[in-house]
Amino acid sequence: MLRDDALKGKTIIVTGGGTGLGKSMTRYFLQLGANVTICSRRQAVLDQTAQELTDELKDQVGAGQVLAIACDVRDPVGIEKVIADTVARFGQVDGLLNNSAGNFISPTERLSYKAFDVVVDIVLRGTYYFTLAVGKYWIENKIKGTVLNISTTYATTGSGYVVPSAVAKGGALIMTKSLAAEWGKYGIRLNAIAPGPFPTKGAWDRLFPEPLASMMDPTSRIPLKRVGEHQELANLAAYLLSDFSGYVTGECITIDGGEVLAAGEFNHLEKVTEDQWDMIGETIKQANRESKKEGQK
Amino acid sequence: MLRDDALKGKTIIVTGGGTGLGKSMTRYFLQLGANVTICSRRQAVLDQTAQELTDELKDQVGAGQVLAIACDVRDPVGIEKVIADTVARFGQVDGLLNNSAGNFISPTERLSYKAFDVVVDIVLRGTYYFTLAVGKYWIENKIKGTVLNISTTYATTGSGYVVPSAVAKGGALIMTKSLAAEWGKYGIRLNAIAPGPFPTKGAWDRLFPEPLASMMDPTSRIPLKRVGEHQELANLAAYLLSDFSGYVTGECITIDGGEVLAAGEFNHLEKVTEDQWDMIGETIKQANRESKKEGQK
Amino acid sequence: MLRDDALKGKTIIVTGGGTGLGKSMTRYFLQLGANVTICSRRQAVLDQTAQELTDELKDQVGAGQVLAIACDVRDPVGIEKVIADTVARFGQVDGLLNNSAGNFISPTERLSYKAFDVVVDIVLRGTYYFTLAVGKYWIENKIKGTVLNISTTYATTGSGYVVPSAVAKGGALIMTKSLAAEWGKYGIRLNAIAPGPFPTKGAWDRLFPEPLASMMDPTSRIPLKRVGEHQELANLAAYLLSDFSGYVTGECITIDGGEVLAAGEFNHLEKVTEDQWDMIGETIKQANRESKKEGQK
Amino acid sequence: MLRDDALKGKTIIVTGGGTGLGKSMTRYFLQLGANVTICSRRQAVLDQTAQELTDELKDQVGAGQVLAIACDVRDPVGIEKVIADTVARFGQVDGLLNNSAGNFISPTERLSYKAFDVVVDIVLRGTYYFTLAVGKYWIENKIKGTVLNISTTYATTGSGYVVPSAVAKGGALIMTKSLAAEWGKYGIRLNAIAPGPFPTKGAWDRLFPEPLASMMDPTSRIPLKRVGEHQELANLAAYLLSDFSGYVTGECITIDGGEVLAAGEFNHLEKVTEDQWDMIGETIKQANRESKKEGQK
Repeated sequence: MLRDDALKGKTIIVTGGGTGLGKSMTRYFLQLGANVTICSRRQAVLDQTAQELTDELKDQVGAGQVLAIACDVRDPVGIEKVIADTVARFGQVDGLLNNSAGNFISPTERLSYKAFDVVVDIVLRGTYYFTLAVGKYWIENKIKGTVLNISTTYATTGSGYVVPSAVAKGGALIMTKSLAAEWGKYGIRLNAIAPGPFPTKGAWDRLFPEPLASMMDPTSRIPLKRVGEHQELANLAAYLLSDFSGYVTGECITIDGGEVLAAGEFNHLEKVTEDQWDMIGETIKQANRESKKEGQK
Repeated sequence: MLRDDALKGKTIIVTGGGTGLGKSMTRYFLQLGANVTICSRRQAVLDQTAQELTDELKDQVGAGQVLAIACDVRDPVGIEKVIADTVARFGQVDGLLNNSAGNFISPTERLSYKAFDVVVDIVLRGTYYFTLAVGKYWIENKIKGTVLNISTTYATTGSGYVVPSAVAKGGALIMTKSLAAEWGKYGIRLNAIAPGPFPTKGAWDRLFPEPLASMMDPTSRIPLKRVGEHQELANLAAYLLSDFSGYVTGECITIDGGEVLAAGEFNHLEKVTEDQWDMIGETIKQANRESKKEGQK
Repeated sequence: MLRDDALKGKTIIVTGGGTGLGKSMTRYFLQLGANVTICSRRQAVLDQTAQELTDELKDQVGAGQVLAIACDVRDPVGIEKVIADTVARFGQVDGLLNNSAGNFISPTERLSYKAFDVVVDIVLRGTYYFTLAVGKYWIENKIKGTVLNISTTYATTGSGYVVPSAVAKGGALIMTKSLAAEWGKYGIRLNAIAPGPFPTKGAWDRLFPEPLASMMDPTSRIPLKRVGEHQELANLAAYLLSDFSGYVTGECITIDGGEVLAAGEFNHLEKVTEDQWDMIGETIKQANRESKKEGQK
Repeated sequence: MLRDDALKGKTIIVTGGGTGLGKSMTRYFLQLGANVTICSRRQAVLDQTAQELTDELKDQVGAGQVLAIACDVRDPVGIEKVIADTVARFGQVDGLLNNSAGNFISPTERLSYKAFDVVVDIVLRGTYYFTLAVGKYWIENKIKGTVLNISTTYATTGSGYVVPSAVAKGGALIMTKSLAAEWGKYGIRLNAIAPGPFPTKGAWDRLFPEPLASMMDPTSRIPLKRVGEHQELANLAAYLLSDFSGYVTGECITIDGGEVLAAGEFNHLEKVTEDQWDMIGETIKQANRESKKEGQK
């Protein structure tokens, strides 16, 4: 949706950039002119993605370049190497997209302490380690960088059955707001996106083994009656990493087709048919008659 | 739950105090020693409630007294008369419980402008008129009064099919927070309660004609698997109107058995059985094995 | 920021479109190819703006056209005429930007009931009247329209000294969420923007007479240390009214340089100097030493 | 505020129960008849507190008993021992108050990865370890227990200069909501309290070395113009751990004198004097005159 040069001259690090939504966002950033460093734990996956994206965009004038560096986000040394290598290759770092994640679907009482820790360490510790490392680099070098965190609606509402992820995403969201307040004076912005269902082949199969998969079709629960398209998320992410959103900071934007609105106490009345509403309509008409009487007083 | 004299010496005005939850809360305030003025549009209903409560409590030492004054909360003259009559009878006003309400269950596109107005005028205009009148009286007389508004969870989440009520309750909730900030310097506190389902014979029948009634059993959707009891709401209301909550202001407390948590994206997995989780458990075990490997690195 | 044809073929109604931010947003919508009907109470102001914008854009290929219709948003007949005239001129209505507003800065206890009503009627009643009228038109004609409401951060936080506006904006925000949930099934989206300070010559002078004006410089309180630029707001508004945001609904996006983050309990420590932090640093070092000991256990 | 036997027969574990607010809450729980196990890292501190509270209450009929067990909340083995010892001594565990905390006041860019981890591990990991351990015990033994977490307003708003604490408290708050939704079916409730400033000699001196201390007087920023009293917090905590709050779950109650409302955009106008408002009043009167004209149309 953005102009072709919307991210020209920017360099962005994307964690979890080798697959799924991270890959889709990376593709769009490259199209808009950004250079992108993708990182995740497996170098082979990253290399394949880098090659694929480079091939796709080889004829597009103004497209950016991609660098693939393996990194475990729980390892500060690895993180600092990603930043150093990116600076060496592209000159500086302008944006960080914290997109790495891990999750289990499980009743919480079935989880070990260790299983809980694994998710929290990847999602929360990884996010604050990377943000702390990049932030120190920006402050030292007086760079007005911007961080974008991939959050989730349950980082605000909470959710059962994904509690370690909820805890970790909840903590990371508060980091976003906290550092937006604190680092605003340096010109550093931090924002988040809370996506609803944006299915990715592979990730969804792993996350939702049967019989969960067949229970998971979310479209009926979503006001707009469809799942999201990767490009829709990429549009919003590119906007938030671009200078066009320069006055937005500390914000988390939900893009979920209205899924989170399900908390509304009477939204389940969507199941009432038009005929049933006609029947019920007498109640309304009666009320209207009363309201008219009120109006004449 | 509170000590018997928790509201001793207080005078509280309860709008919509003649029936339903307003009546239940009034009863408890009287038991705790408060004098209560109940008001609503129909004097006959109020008189009957006043008589009934007086009879009930006639042998309880320390119980307060009840005064019944008809009043349309959309009429400032009527409101000011309620305040004046209450002061004349009980000496002063210490608390205001904005509990009057009106609601339609309907698809919004079926509502007339007028029908929308009726609900907003009772719920929102009535609330700010009464609060403004009492607030001016308190500031002029240097009384450290407290306001309690009966809100709803959809004042925060929004909800379809009750949109005029949602709009009105949403506005009233922001009034609560706004005036808590502004009038704190006068020692005036304002709080709200967002109750989930607390069924009242009569009110529920009117609000939910068939076939809504049979669709409305909320217990399965509520984490605690039950509706609320009037005394549970009365406990919280009495606490918030008492001096024991003297450092709580600008707050809206939800008492809904967890109903509003339904927004959590994976909470619907409650439907997965234990056997199904056992099947899925292999995924978790695999993840745990991987996490152990991670831990050894 | 968007591609030149981002709103091509769309027709948008902008209330309060004759001046200030409404005019700035209208200009950008026209540049992106939309036709725009601007309305407010004074026809002369609208005509002048329409002429000015038409002149500005007369050489831009693909720019939209502007129609000026006087309308009081508290008058359903007037609202329906705006819709009918817009359909007559441009074929249909695709978007509605509820931007009309009214506000007083005043201690609440100094307001009359009437003064309170005036603001609530323009801001809240006007918004739900217009939204209801357009929504009925869209549902009847199976048009997947979109509504954007100009909200404010105090629609969520509340604020003293602008309480009628806070109440009204609070109610309108809940309408946004409620109808996004209810009307999603029709493909109708509703969103809101909560802008921080975007000064407009004229509006600010009226709203902030001295001595308020000199107290109002908000830049020091804002993390990004500046006010917003009209184009930054226009970027976000155009995105939300375009199809590029097709999976965003029921959302309110804050664009305020981080102003609302001021609630953070320790953000005022921004006043501590680097030298002072050096002094305090011993505490941190001590804590780090302890943390190392912990790590060795 | 509660009846003397409000917690009779309950056994509650209080982490960080040896000092400060934990000790104050423990005292009140004992007065209300609960048995309490206090734990923290230093056995000597716990023993002294246990002795002191036992002495204080030795003449109070119906007071509960206190057990002191040293425990590092980051150690699952230690946590499970606390639970086992409590069951051995008092029969079962009914409530858990997660109150342990750690905090630094510092610009975030001055923190090491390790310093960040220390706070997150105590506050967040400790909270989910203990909650997981107690939850498994309750589910296995079909006990309808309740958890109360001491949170903070910046767990929702975020805050600079205490970012590790904000991250950790933010995560713990989402755990509260998530498990309230998931474990409601077992009759388990989880709630939180977000206290404003409740100064404790010792804790505050450590947290706020000079020159912070002299900058920290929060009373002017707080609508109610005072700090909180320990008993006020204890009242709310006892309510939430008692059966009287049986329909409240997944809720976080703020008790802060209105401090968090500071986000309201115009609340700083509190500094305008009455004389200045008189001057400004002309603007309002003018607006009222216009509003009357509107009303006559």
